[in-house]
Amino acid sequence: MIKPLISLAAMLALALPAAAQEEPQGAPSPNEIVGQAAPEEWIAIAPEDLLVMTLAPADDGTERKVVIQLMPAPFSQGWVENIRTLARTRWYDDITVNRVQDNYVVQWGDINYDNPEAEGEAKLLPDGLRVMEVKDYAPDVPLRSFSSTGGPLKSDDYAERVGFVGSIPVGYRIYSPPPGARLADFLTQAWPIHCYGMVGVGRGYSPDTGSGAELYTVIGHAPRHLDRNIALVGRIVDGMEHLSSLPRGNGALGFYTADEADKRTPILSVRIASDLPEGDRPSFEYLSTGGETFARYAEARANRRDPFFIVPAGGADICNIPVPIRRAGE
Amino acid sequence: MIKPLISLAAMLALALPAAAQEEPQGAPSPNEIVGQAAPEEWIAIAPEDLLVMTLAPADDGTERKVVIQLMPAPFSQGWVENIRTLARTRWYDDITVNRVQDNYVVQWGDINYDNPEAEGEAKLLPDGLRVMEVKDYAPDVPLRSFSSTGGPLKSDDYAERVGFVGSIPVGYRIYSPPPGARLADFLTQAWPIHCYGMVGVGRGYSPDTGSGAELYTVIGHAPRHLDRNIALVGRIVDGMEHLSSLPRGNGALGFYTADEADKRTPILSVRIASDLPEGDRPSFEYLSTGGETFARYAEARANRRDPFFIVPAGGADICNIPVPIRRAGE
Repeated sequence: MIKPLISLAAMLALALPAAAQEEPQGAPSPNEIVGQAAPEEWIAIAPEDLLVMTLAPADDGTERKVVIQLMPAPFSQGWVENIRTLARTRWYDDITVNRVQDNYVVQWGDINYDNPEAEGEAKLLPDGLRVMEVKDYAPDVPLRSFSSTGGPLKSDDYAERVGFVGSIPVGYRIYSPPPGARLADFLTQAWPIHCYGMVGVGRGYSPDTGSGAELYTVIGHAPRHLDRNIALVGRIVDGMEHLSSLPRGNGALGFYTADEADKRTPILSVRIASDLPEGDRPSFEYLSTGGETFARYAEARANRRDPFFIVPAGGADICNIPVPIRRAGE
Repeated sequence: MIKPLISLAAMLALALPAAAQEEPQGAPSPNEIVGQAAPEEWIAIAPEDLLVMTLAPADDGTERKVVIQLMPAPFSQGWVENIRTLARTRWYDDITVNRVQDNYVVQWGDINYDNPEAEGEAKLLPDGLRVMEVKDYAPDVPLRSFSSTGGPLKSDDYAERVGFVGSIPVGYRIYSPPPGARLADFLTQAWPIHCYGMVGVGRGYSPDTGSGAELYTVIGHAPRHLDRNIALVGRIVDGMEHLSSLPRGNGALGFYTADEADKRTPILSVRIASDLPEGDRPSFEYLSTGGETFARYAEARANRRDPFFIVPAGGADICNIPVPIRRAGE
């Protein structure tokens, strides 16, 4: 999630006549519920799990930084290690945003990488990148890893079940348990879900799985058909607007054409937060999905009873229950 | 839908090494299926049902036009008539985009309308605007109106059932049929769905239902919790990128603050296509949702077997089956 959700009731305060309407009685909004969480319900994201991607400044000179939470174990760790290698060897420095496709993705990488129309040499990849396998898109995960498996979420069009492993929305299916197994040991096959702002690894045709050199983020309706078909390695937690507001490319699939070369936003650097001087290190935390507040928040997302609403939906899809994330100290 | 979907297989053509990989065998992509539709499966959108919204030119001088398909009967016709009245009385001329909230909406209207911090006079609304009721968000619709009710779509987290009435994605529930009723006469309560690019009517607290003076469009993951709570009056069919790429507002809910006044994109005019000179009149058509091609297209959206994919999902949410829309003559 990019910014805290703000209740539409607050919006209406800007749309009410000067002789303001009485705010009608209603239940707290999902954001108000999150605001009531106890401090211990907020879990720090380790600085090793945060990337700071600095884009070229905007036309008016303002700084543009994007912060990415890297996928925690047990998902995608080989690709995540590759991303740390690419960041530490400065391979990402001076790459560009090459593709912006409306209602789909922003994608960035080396414009000369795997490009038959390349005008320059591809950047040499660093040694030591792991080659991942297709099976790594959806690993086995014991059911005990799940902090939230029920509530208003059950199955959807894309997965037998949906839930949360820590801060990550996942789809999963439960294997037939081995004889005598306890419930917590049941195995699931689980995979992260392509919600808005999630970050994934561009690849060629399977069995290529991508290294992490080419990354993308979702800027529209969740393209769930990509789940299990490509690796997800994180989520944008700050600065999403610097990517989602980029001009769309005129080429096929939103790639910038040759005469749009000036639209390719330069990426000046990508650094792991723990490698930055302490004063430059961003600090983020997420609301525990195993806690009582998250359960109430999820239920309120599924049943809006705050003043603006008339008909509670009775359910919510998993990408409409974004895990609250905030800068530490907010 | 904003642009025709382009197969990711084509994208991969740009990501393959110079010694190009063999394109693996696979089924046609959803877009390829659409390309095979017979001419008679494409249904023209009447020019009375198209709005042309002209924004101020971009910084580099390029023209920015947004085309909106107005909601067809039986949905939201009172609000749609108001929109035609507002367009014909030129009320929309010189309004502005006032709100851009990431992963949510772009909203436009009169900056002085219902605004306690207004610096100017609100524009006088024209006579003859209809006052709509809450019940009009979700009218009764006979089941015979539905062109597509099954296939990979059944129920979802937000509606007992989902389907299509003509070109419009809807949620619905079936009433207990009156005794002796034939299936086609069964009544549903149905409502349009907040997919990406759908256009809705800003309102105050209920029972205010909004007139159509204030409009918004969805620029992120479908906010289905708004279904049945607010009127949907159309969908962006062209030029979506001119709205979705706008800078996000720094104020609450993505409103531009007072010192961001220069970011408020002016809207120069909104015209009904049938009121424009014939040479200026855009012409769009949609793929019939009752036809054989749409059924195959929807099945392919739910089960991607084109070369890029490994695991077909086995289902798709309704907003991931956008109704194909194209300029006539493409």
